[in-house]
Amino acid sequence: MDKVFGGAVIGFGGMGSWHANRIKSAQGIELIGVYDIDPERHEAARKDEIYTFSSREELLADDRIGLVTIATPNDVHKEIAIAAMAAGKNVICEKPVTLSSKDLEEMLGAAEKYGVLFTVHQNRRWDGDYLTVKKIYEDNTLGRIYNIESRVQGSRGIPGDWRGIKKYGGGMVLDWGVHLLDQALTIMGDKKLVSVYATTTHITNDEVDDGFRATLNFGDVNYYVEVTTNDFVELPRWFVLGENGSAVIENWDIEGRIVKVKDWENYDVTPIQAGAGITKTMAPRTSKTIKKYPLPKVHSDWGEFYRNVIACINGEENIIVTHKQIRRCMKLIEAIFESAKTNSVVPFEE
Amino acid sequence: MDKVFGGAVIGFGGMGSWHANRIKSAQGIELIGVYDIDPERHEAARKDEIYTFSSREELLADDRIGLVTIATPNDVHKEIAIAAMAAGKNVICEKPVTLSSKDLEEMLGAAEKYGVLFTVHQNRRWDGDYLTVKKIYEDNTLGRIYNIESRVQGSRGIPGDWRGIKKYGGGMVLDWGVHLLDQALTIMGDKKLVSVYATTTHITNDEVDDGFRATLNFGDVNYYVEVTTNDFVELPRWFVLGENGSAVIENWDIEGRIVKVKDWENYDVTPIQAGAGITKTMAPRTSKTIKKYPLPKVHSDWGEFYRNVIACINGEENIIVTHKQIRRCMKLIEAIFESAKTNSVVPFEE
Repeated sequence: MDKVFGGAVIGFGGMGSWHANRIKSAQGIELIGVYDIDPERHEAARKDEIYTFSSREELLADDRIGLVTIATPNDVHKEIAIAAMAAGKNVICEKPVTLSSKDLEEMLGAAEKYGVLFTVHQNRRWDGDYLTVKKIYEDNTLGRIYNIESRVQGSRGIPGDWRGIKKYGGGMVLDWGVHLLDQALTIMGDKKLVSVYATTTHITNDEVDDGFRATLNFGDVNYYVEVTTNDFVELPRWFVLGENGSAVIENWDIEGRIVKVKDWENYDVTPIQAGAGITKTMAPRTSKTIKKYPLPKVHSDWGEFYRNVIACINGEENIIVTHKQIRRCMKLIEAIFESAKTNSVVPFEE
Repeated sequence: MDKVFGGAVIGFGGMGSWHANRIKSAQGIELIGVYDIDPERHEAARKDEIYTFSSREELLADDRIGLVTIATPNDVHKEIAIAAMAAGKNVICEKPVTLSSKDLEEMLGAAEKYGVLFTVHQNRRWDGDYLTVKKIYEDNTLGRIYNIESRVQGSRGIPGDWRGIKKYGGGMVLDWGVHLLDQALTIMGDKKLVSVYATTTHITNDEVDDGFRATLNFGDVNYYVEVTTNDFVELPRWFVLGENGSAVIENWDIEGRIVKVKDWENYDVTPIQAGAGITKTMAPRTSKTIKKYPLPKVHSDWGEFYRNVIACINGEENIIVTHKQIRRCMKLIEAIFESAKTNSVVPFEE
């Protein structure tokens, strides 16, 4: 690492505190201080022996600070990010980056204008379960994969703060959706997203969505994303189908399995009684023609995000979470809202 | 039962043989004989001590026969059904009743013209798993239900006969779909089906679909239907969400559970480490605020189908599987094909 420079956090809530700790423990950067509009949060910061700036202006005027992480409510990301970039700071913005592509373009334009780094904290690219699916996809473990289902199911409604309010960028599409959609776009890589069909739910909240279901048509891959907050039973976190086998990941602890065909013949078929009829088509296979495998092991290091940002500022690496990706994910979120609102399939690319 | 009249089966394959046995064991009807174009099938019938007619004409000319069950390939249902009705016979037709609404109207028109009963063997209305979900829905067990998912997942491709050939009415929408869609329309009852979005798969077969996924928008109920034939792991047969609880039915043996909220408070929340982040929203509930229940017990008697048909012919009951329902299900199948072909949401009713 060439040099150590200063980092600061604006917005010292749950995520802001998390970022402050990450900056403290990262190499090549030191935490200079934080700023929050809430005096109680400054109290909390000082208890952690973190310096608190008296104003955002004071923070942005501090020449020691090279990197500002923004962890405020979503609706003020834009204004703060642009102010920070105008002050010459590199910026990490919490997700969702902002509430519309229009606002996002202003933010990306500012990064270009002031010649600074701007990226989004898409930490769930380092989720072990996601990296496992990505490896299965890239290694062609199941043959050609044609179906991926990614679900996160909760039962507690929307947490009772700004996440339930529209003008603050609340709702599950923007909160959890942004993670699962970014994962989808990243796994699929250069594959074009042809169209989007989505529905949203309003079980516990009228103002914003408290869940959604989206079918992303990537041509030869059907990618389904679901977030719910009123489910008292759960389906697996991931469900993946390839031509020669299937994979399931049950949970965040990456419990699951791969099942692959070892012999396409149907000589192990015994018709089963299935409700008011018998069926051969739906009779489960036996170990005669399929084989179970454990999930592949992946390495996942959440520290890579800050390491990459710092290396990027030092001119040593390319940024992992790029402007192009941030833009595409924002447009996908807008397509989901549009599809749900109009009950129609929304064309996306090409 | 007023009188015993004669029944016959045209098409003596797997299902034809099943029907012959049902007629043998039903009250108020006796099996007169069967007809198949394949001499080998006649051989099989005679081994079961069943009379085989030398021609369809001979069968239809037999005055003892009041009810004909048609269990031939799908593409000849129409012609045989109309010939049977013209001969004054009441008709049970195997599913799918035929391949288009246009053909179906000719069949229903013939029933009216000749004043006979015409119905379709929708035997899966007597599936215990389906009846369990229907009871949960009707008893309001989970509060207002807003999401029902119905999946049948196989791994053997399409059975290697006429089911893989388009002109014979092959493919999974027509084979298994017709059951799950009829169940959906029956559970939802008078609720209007607003629109349909569907995708089909062609993993092991180019000519016909070897699976499909359909989202049926019933206004305040999202009803999802899926049939697959290349899945080596399975999701539960049924997944049902209500405002106050959820239900899952794992399999045909009706294993599963209901989980209901007993206290909406979130005081049992402990944030969980979930991949590269922590979450309160998605933290599972504990027994402090939810409670598990067994699935309700239902009575299921597959014999009711023939009993109803016979009672209906004797003027004692109304038919269970009505023309209106048969028509609606056929139109739904067509909407699914249209949606998948055009990658669009197809409006259905109103």
